[in-house]
Parts: sequence; C-alpha cells; structure tokens
Amino acid sequence: MTPALAAIPLQHWPLAQGDPLILHFDTVLERVRELLPEAPRLALDRLALDSPVANPGKIVNAPINYRAHIDETSQDAAIAHGRDMTRSIWDWGLFLKASSALIGPSEQIRLRFPDRRNDHEVELAVVIGRRCHQVSREEALNYVAGYAIGLDITIRGPELQSFRKSPDTYAVCGPWLATRDEIPDPGVLDLRLWVNNELRQSANTRQLIYDVPRLIEYASSFYTLHPGDLIFTGTPEGVGPLLPGDRVDAEIAQIGRFSIQVADRYV
Amino acid sequence: MTPALAAIPLQHWPLAQGDPLILHFDTVLERVRELLPEAPRLALDRLALDSPVANPGKIVNAPINYRAHIDETSQDAAIAHGRDMTRSIWDWGLFLKASSALIGPSEQIRLRFPDRRNDHEVELAVVIGRRCHQVSREEALNYVAGYAIGLDITIRGPELQSFRKSPDTYAVCGPWLATRDEIPDPGVLDLRLWVNNELRQSANTRQLIYDVPRLIEYASSFYTLHPGDLIFTGTPEGVGPLLPGDRVDAEIAQIGRFSIQVADRYV
Repeated sequence: MTPALAAIPLQHWPLAQGDPLILHFDTVLERVRELLPEAPRLALDRLALDSPVANPGKIVNAPINYRAHIDETSQDAAIAHGRDMTRSIWDWGLFLKASSALIGPSEQIRLRFPDRRNDHEVELAVVIGRRCHQVSREEALNYVAGYAIGLDITIRGPELQSFRKSPDTYAVCGPWLATRDEIPDPGVLDLRLWVNNELRQSANTRQLIYDVPRLIEYASSFYTLHPGDLIFTGTPEGVGPLLPGDRVDAEIAQIGRFSIQVADRYV
Repeated sequence: MTPALAAIPLQHWPLAQGDPLILHFDTVLERVRELLPEAPRLALDRLALDSPVANPGKIVNAPINYRAHIDETSQDAAIAHGRDMTRSIWDWGLFLKASSALIGPSEQIRLRFPDRRNDHEVELAVVIGRRCHQVSREEALNYVAGYAIGLDITIRGPELQSFRKSPDTYAVCGPWLATRDEIPDPGVLDLRLWVNNELRQSANTRQLIYDVPRLIEYASSFYTLHPGDLIFTGTPEGVGPLLPGDRVDAEIAQIGRFSIQVADRYV
C-alpha cells in the first residue's frame, strides 16, 4: 500500500475539508490496481490495522435506530438515565463523536472512570465518498465510498451523547474499508459482537429504523457531508458493559471481522 | 502574513491531530515578528477575515453556562423544548459542533429551515495551544493559545445540540486570535451582541458558571484536547431569533469586534 498512498498529495494549510485519502480515493485505487500483480503479499495477522479513515471531518451517529435496542434501553434505567425513550430518531436527531476518539483494531480501547458503566455498541459504519448537501435517499448511495465496522463505545450516564461517547479510543473503525461496489445493498447485512467469545449482539441491518440512504438524506438536510465523514448507523440490542482486559470481536457480513483488546486498566 | 504562514510545513496523510497553524504557532509568530518592521500595512476594512483557526479537530461547547441564560431558557418553551433546565452543566456535560460548520466573519450566516427559529448566541471562544489530557484547573491556562469571539448559531427544537447547532455556517469565529499574553484573565471580559444595531446580549465572563480553567479541566477529563481545538464557553442571556438579511455585531473586551451578515434568503 505504501507506494499507492504516495499518490495522495501533500496538504497545505488551511486544509481542504475531507480526509485526504478519500478525497484522492480513485487515484489511490488506480495505483493499487497497477501495483497489485507485482506486490508482495503480507500475512494479515502480522499487520497492525489502523482506522481505514484516518482524518474524518466528523463522525455522525444515529442514537436509537433499532427497535429492539429502544426496547432494552427503555427497560434499563442504567441506560436510559431519565431520557424519554419513546421519542423517535426524528426527535433526537443525530449526534457527533469527537474525531480524536478514533482508533483502529490494532490499538486498545482504554476505559475511563472505573466507577461508571462503559458499554460496547457494534454498528455498520458508512464512509462518505463525495461531498453532498440536501441529497435525496434515492441518490444517497452514490455518495458512499464504502463500509466498515464501527464500535461506538459509550459511558452510561446523564451527559449528552457527544460528550460521554467521545473519550480517546471510544470510536473504533475497521478492519478495512469495503468499497461500495462490494456491497450493493447495505440493508441486508448480519452484524454480531462477542465479548470474550460470548455472543452479545446479533442483528441485521434490515432492522434499521432509518436505513443508510435515509440517514444520508437526513444528515445532509442539516449539514454538508464531506469525503471521509463517517456515519455510525446505530447499534442493535444486546449492549452491555466492558471491563479492563476484555477482548471484543465484531463481524459484519460482506465486510469482515476484527478483534480488539480492552486495555487491562483504566486511564 | 503570507510569508509567515509559509513556515507551516506541508502535511502528509495521515494528518497529525491538531490545526497545522496552531501546531506551528511559535514558529509562525517568530516569523511575524521578524517580518513586521518591513511589512506593508493593509486597511482592516479591505480584508476578508476567515476563522483564525481553519481546521479545529473539534469544537467543544458548554450548553448552559450562565445563570441568567438558564433562567430565560426555563421560562421560554420555544428554547427549552421539554428539556429539564434545572439540570446543571455537570449533568449535561459538553457537546460538539461540527467543524464543517465553521466560518469567519467575512462569510455569511446561511439560515436553514424557514419554519424554525434560528438564534444568535455570542460566546468567548478559547483556542487550545498544546495537547492536554486530565489537566487541572490550576494548570489549564498554560494550554491556551489565545481567545476569539464565537457565535453559536442554533436551531431551536427537540434534537440533540450537536445536530441542530451544526449546519454549515452555524459556527462563527473571529475576528482574529488574541494571544494568551494579551488576555491575562479571561474571567473579566465584557461581551455584547447587537442585531441590526439593537443590543441583544450584554454580560461579563465573570458570570460563567464553569470558568475557562474549569472548562478545560472538565473537557480534558473526558478526552484529549489538541492544538486548535476550540472551546465555545457558553452564551449569556438575551438569545433571540435571526432572520435573513440581519446584520450581527459581536464584541468582546480585549479581543475586538466583528460584523457579520445573515444571507438574505434561506438555503
């Protein structure tokens, strides 16, 4: 990959909006195709996998986008914290996670605040490929570069989502970017998450309340989406606490699977 | 400024966390001091002023940080929208505005959604100068690069703050960056805002519930603050609607003043 990534031009300040890799994605892909026949093959388990998008301008998140997750949230005061969970995604809108929270699967999740509950949430992550504003759901998928697995790590509590979901390492993206052509329909994907080999979350993106085209339409009705912006589409039922030393495995059909370690003590 | 800004090195992908100007601020300032004696002087009113920080990694915001603003919010259902305004900033935490919303005073505020109320909120904006995590309030001001005036333009409604405060052009920063040495105490600054020459907001940062050092301590207890991250410290009482064609003037003592136009139609 290194010689292909050299196709990304150096960036001047002020930086253009958008992740430089995704801004120059077609050029990089072309170089990859040229280099592939002669390129050495490296064993996947010997590589460290960073987030496929290094510099997203924003990480957009859907708060309650699976019906069965709304049900479990309503029934668990430790998750709901007094919020009215009968409200729909239309009422809540979308929230942001800090880009400084982003890591790839080769890093470790470092939990904050030992006295608070820190939950796992597995989600389909959408990588925006082209700038869009006020795009219709019919056109929306044309603006997608690809898909990845996202973990929306979450401190439970009363604070706004954009605060308690934004500590360093609380946004995981990986194991790579599956390009749009590899996933003709993002609305039929099984997604699963295990903690220490125990299955905790298992659902299908068919159960999304706002599907991927509708999320892009909705987000872009408020603000411009730029190349490399991530949309975490929401988590299904089965969320639960992580503890130091846990190992998390996450899988989405047609994308792949990664394993990530929770650091063995709080920071 | 142009030859001084040439001191900022070109950036490779993946980009380092932080705004490149603020990452290299000392070098740029040194060049400015060298160039200043011989530099041509340009009339301020002939310059277009961009945001002094072009590429903040995150824009952190305090939601309800002036007592009198909490009072007006509690008494106006069009602002509160069913939220419990007896909760403190400690309960709410901080929220994020999208970096894609950021403009300088030479651009125009473009209002979205004619059927919804779009409010002005003037705030002291803090520019982080050095990376910090879990910093104490006693040490906090050492991590500041400087200060500016921030406008936190806001759609009223039920959605989360990070959504309805993030449309393009809804974060204004200017007119420039007053460096930390110019403002020994950010806790004694008068701030005011006018709409079409009518005074709407007038307060002093002495009335902040969480002052600047405490906001840096609080934010950095959740996540790392990087060079160029902005903290909008919250707005005082007097918020109210903007309409297409309005002119907004904002002033903070020891920083300066700017004037910005609201575009004459909705987008």
